[in-house]
Amino acid sequence: MQVQSEKICNFAIECFRKVGMSEEDAKLVTDTMLVADNRGIHSHGFLRLPIYVERIKKGFINIHPNIEKVNDNTSISLIDGDYGAGQVVGKNAMDNSIQKAKESGLGLTVVKNSNHFGIAAYYASLATQENMIGIVISNVEALMPAVGGAEKIIGNNPISIAAPTKKGENPIVLDMALSNVPLGKILMAQTKEESIPKDWGVDQNGEATDDPNEVVNGGILLPMGGPKGFGLALLTEILTGVISGGQYSKTVHSMYDMEEKQSISHFMLAIDVSFFGELDEYVSRIENLTSFVKDSKKAPGIEETFLPGEMEFSREEQSKKTGVPIEEKVLKELHVLADSLNIKADF
Amino acid sequence: MQVQSEKICNFAIECFRKVGMSEEDAKLVTDTMLVADNRGIHSHGFLRLPIYVERIKKGFINIHPNIEKVNDNTSISLIDGDYGAGQVVGKNAMDNSIQKAKESGLGLTVVKNSNHFGIAAYYASLATQENMIGIVISNVEALMPAVGGAEKIIGNNPISIAAPTKKGENPIVLDMALSNVPLGKILMAQTKEESIPKDWGVDQNGEATDDPNEVVNGGILLPMGGPKGFGLALLTEILTGVISGGQYSKTVHSMYDMEEKQSISHFMLAIDVSFFGELDEYVSRIENLTSFVKDSKKAPGIEETFLPGEMEFSREEQSKKTGVPIEEKVLKELHVLADSLNIKADF
Repeated sequence: MQVQSEKICNFAIECFRKVGMSEEDAKLVTDTMLVADNRGIHSHGFLRLPIYVERIKKGFINIHPNIEKVNDNTSISLIDGDYGAGQVVGKNAMDNSIQKAKESGLGLTVVKNSNHFGIAAYYASLATQENMIGIVISNVEALMPAVGGAEKIIGNNPISIAAPTKKGENPIVLDMALSNVPLGKILMAQTKEESIPKDWGVDQNGEATDDPNEVVNGGILLPMGGPKGFGLALLTEILTGVISGGQYSKTVHSMYDMEEKQSISHFMLAIDVSFFGELDEYVSRIENLTSFVKDSKKAPGIEETFLPGEMEFSREEQSKKTGVPIEEKVLKELHVLADSLNIKADF
Repeated sequence: MQVQSEKICNFAIECFRKVGMSEEDAKLVTDTMLVADNRGIHSHGFLRLPIYVERIKKGFINIHPNIEKVNDNTSISLIDGDYGAGQVVGKNAMDNSIQKAKESGLGLTVVKNSNHFGIAAYYASLATQENMIGIVISNVEALMPAVGGAEKIIGNNPISIAAPTKKGENPIVLDMALSNVPLGKILMAQTKEESIPKDWGVDQNGEATDDPNEVVNGGILLPMGGPKGFGLALLTEILTGVISGGQYSKTVHSMYDMEEKQSISHFMLAIDVSFFGELDEYVSRIENLTSFVKDSKKAPGIEETFLPGEMEFSREEQSKKTGVPIEEKVLKELHVLADSLNIKADF
């Protein structure tokens, strides 16, 4: 289904306003969901609106957070997000990194006590608007085992790295989670009764399986690239939850756990490319690198080779013409939410 | 074969001295090879001594580099390595990052015009000795295709992230290249006449193959995790060769190309963990995270779950007792080198 962008956004903003969020914050959280759905990353789109609203109502997302610097220096800050919405805390943190990078070439902000912030690319891309490279890492609840383990001990922590290109053109944006695939892809195989590659997940005993049911029923997602992905997950956990002083690994809570605050940590780095030389020179090098990818010799049957983020931007362009693509099932849930908040949903 | 550490090191130092390198630099380059062989990372051990010597003789490695800061600020520097040995330039860069992090909590050094520097973990670990987290990235010559490509356009760039633990104990050290496996592993399958998983490499047309011969004869290594690994390779290329103003992607040269300088770029970040709070508190959190890994429930048949770097440190401890493990074939090559330099090799 395609929904008019203005209608769905106004609806989401009204939902957040109804549970007490400021208009500015409501617009920001809504924008991250819009961008996600428009780019085809539906797992982080309006699908999340009901759970965000629910967590605000429970007090697990603090709508009046006192976001404070715990420590601060020329190019580095530690921020306590006071359990604010991940989007609000996350943007605050990246804005801080960008400001520091404007003044000193480099800015790192580490944040504790935040929440789910949507797509990591949203924050990394803020840096590219200022001709900076953005690097964003977040921890999440434990979803993956150690190598050879049979227990969830580490998150499939998302990493986004975004680099600016020529003014007015899309940046190059990598945004990935550290599991081989998201759970959604295994659920889809289960629905279609298809087998899955043996490196997507293990059963509840930690044994390799090609049966999606075994993974879904008590099994565990596996890291991308085996020990490499596990290592990246562990070290990104240290760069977020461990150094921040927040929760980490098994003590981080899922947004679907309605008993506890999540306590997510983020790591947001901004590097000003003009520290290294003329911006024009950088842009011409990026264009050259881009041509290596786009003009590459192709394997048989392959028509195009893509830059990281390119397919997402192309979907976004399409969505801007045709409307926000949202699944019927999600729209139904949004109508249920509308009823519960006594808000009109005219989509 | 096991060789006495002192003998092989003195030999290597003498080789470097013979071709004009300072004693200090010769000791450093030798130490990186010793650490690599002792930890079982033989691809970066004394196997590389002959090619390093050869490249010094050709002038591709500058033994009297004028390592200079091109730009400098509180927490960030751009350094021109003047084609010095990668180890010399690399240590200089990480020392600079560490110094900045001591003063300001954070230090980033980006380096252009360097050479192959051995194992990335060597430099990331320098940071851990000062209770800092080290992040090291290097570019290398193009070895991998775009997704769906049939041409080498991007390096399997190494990434090392190292985190300090309790004083006197081994740090947690991830050190990985971005290809699924190194070429050596495919060569081994070729020797043993075994088939390989289809995600290790493609044939010369870019098509998936389980035949190691097809990869070795004009084929290409594949990135770990498919599009994710390709994306990481492209973005780490931007963080090194593109922003540094050095060579990048297809224009970086292999150390086995005897026509050109390599022109490698490095990215070296140091983050002082004490910026975020008491060191004791950090250490207790790291110990807790470590226990999550070590005490994890295991899959059937698995006796131990390991931290990143743990197996390498255990091999190193063993090697320190029994001698440096070096293959017979490599020892023969070192004897040939000894003859060519007119140096005695008593191992």
